[in-house]
Amino acid sequence: MSLVVVGSIAFDSVRTPFGERDRMLGGSAVHFSLAASFFADVRVVGPVGEDFGDEEHAVLNGRGVNTDDIERVEGGETFFWRGHYEFDLNTAHTDDTQLGVFGEFEPKLSEESRQADTLFLANIQPDLQREVREQCSGAGLVGLDSMNLWIDTARESLVRTIGGVDLVFMNDAEIRMLTGEPNLVRASRAVMEMGPRAVVAKQGEYGAALFTEDGFFALPAYPLETVNDPTGAGDSFAGGFLGYLSSAGEDAADDDLTLRRAMTYGSVLASFNVEEFGTERVRRLTRDEIDERYGEFRGMTSFDEVPAA
Amino acid sequence: MSLVVVGSIAFDSVRTPFGERDRMLGGSAVHFSLAASFFADVRVVGPVGEDFGDEEHAVLNGRGVNTDDIERVEGGETFFWRGHYEFDLNTAHTDDTQLGVFGEFEPKLSEESRQADTLFLANIQPDLQREVREQCSGAGLVGLDSMNLWIDTARESLVRTIGGVDLVFMNDAEIRMLTGEPNLVRASRAVMEMGPRAVVAKQGEYGAALFTEDGFFALPAYPLETVNDPTGAGDSFAGGFLGYLSSAGEDAADDDLTLRRAMTYGSVLASFNVEEFGTERVRRLTRDEIDERYGEFRGMTSFDEVPAA
Repeated sequence: MSLVVVGSIAFDSVRTPFGERDRMLGGSAVHFSLAASFFADVRVVGPVGEDFGDEEHAVLNGRGVNTDDIERVEGGETFFWRGHYEFDLNTAHTDDTQLGVFGEFEPKLSEESRQADTLFLANIQPDLQREVREQCSGAGLVGLDSMNLWIDTARESLVRTIGGVDLVFMNDAEIRMLTGEPNLVRASRAVMEMGPRAVVAKQGEYGAALFTEDGFFALPAYPLETVNDPTGAGDSFAGGFLGYLSSAGEDAADDDLTLRRAMTYGSVLASFNVEEFGTERVRRLTRDEIDERYGEFRGMTSFDEVPAA
Repeated sequence: MSLVVVGSIAFDSVRTPFGERDRMLGGSAVHFSLAASFFADVRVVGPVGEDFGDEEHAVLNGRGVNTDDIERVEGGETFFWRGHYEFDLNTAHTDDTQLGVFGEFEPKLSEESRQADTLFLANIQPDLQREVREQCSGAGLVGLDSMNLWIDTARESLVRTIGGVDLVFMNDAEIRMLTGEPNLVRASRAVMEMGPRAVVAKQGEYGAALFTEDGFFALPAYPLETVNDPTGAGDSFAGGFLGYLSSAGEDAADDDLTLRRAMTYGSVLASFNVEEFGTERVRRLTRDEIDERYGEFRGMTSFDEVPAA
């Protein structure tokens, strides 16, 4: 199965209480595709500037991610974000944003990307998300992320875009904001009434919750003693989730059990992502490590059995 | 098995976006004992004023709670709290507190209460908690709750008190505050190093997490569409938890599986508590309803099976 992600490709300068890094490879499409690459053939679509070179391509290609649809804009600069996190790591504070070539981005999918089975619309302007979704009309499974900025400035367009996707991944606060409904159960149902068959509420250090027509499932975040950099956790989650789902065959998103397993793989990938800065941990991650942590999640959530010590 | 709780008995005036109530029966010892009463013989210890009458006793006695150790102070007034919650129900705002007889409270346990197997020290001044713990020297299982006020004003005493208990129930933010450690895994381990064998981090709408020497377990909150009044949720949680544990026999707290089941019963009781105002829902709750919701928790947390629709 083939999976396409459209979103930002960036350089991130990040400072946390545990260190800092300057101009690391980042961006939602990058974190997503590295995570998804453990499960599916991934193509990444997004713009970069002249400052994006072989080293960055090598990180993606090293995980088998196809970068043919990365559009290099002559004379342009890659999207740049500088931010920091306070002691508790819960909130990202933006210190600088340089949109660069991302400000003029008009997604053009190659013929190969248009034929993907699975599509992830990372957090970009909802009009653009809808254009991409129309270009990729054959995709049987489409996920979307968004943010408070678009709820504030382009709510109507966002609601239309949500109407054309299968799965919505958003922070719980944003799901409440989008729907004006403080109760998360009702808010998630209101999002499903816009069209999607499932809503994933991302809850940061508390994990994530899955709402479907038939049920509710929630998973804690993996209990890490060392979190160095939360940047990209949500996109890694979505990458693990949709990557696994894409590998689980047609109609996988109709089956609640498969969705629950996707939640778990998403949580596993997010947990590895935050252990180190940027893509440092995920780029050397192995499938065995993923499967081991997946098993640990079972041991953390069952009250019918406890894992052997 | 017999269980004693020492804490506040109160009248609460509460306003939420969904209604308000004036001078309802409340207080940590009340919410705890009603929840625990489904599993164990409960005795409640705490002071009340002349305004506390037969109607209030009847609520407790109606659930089989022994009120012989409620100390009625002539000429005194029962602890009174007035508060309100904003739209998202996450934060309680205090509008008025009248300590009344609670300000002079010197716990004196009857001979029967001193012989309890299980003791819960609800959120009161840590010197008093320690005195109670000493009076109840034979209790094989002791739990404790506390709050930011005591971390700020009596930290040293609180740490000593924690050194003499088996289980600590605190909000995750307070566990971080107590230990000065923003990472919850490390913070909980630091609390265990003070003496307790397990730490329960209460996480409000996100559920609760259990830390023991051997493992980690987390449970989401039950997904309610209607939450009317969160007051007493934490004490109902502790009541369901310790009530079940007390019924599970000696050394129950040494077994991680039993602790996990206690977490689930705690979550079940908390979820019923918040459905209506004050004690309204729990006072007419049945054991069948508890067991049904316990089963639903299994269905919400497994990624090996989904419940039948």
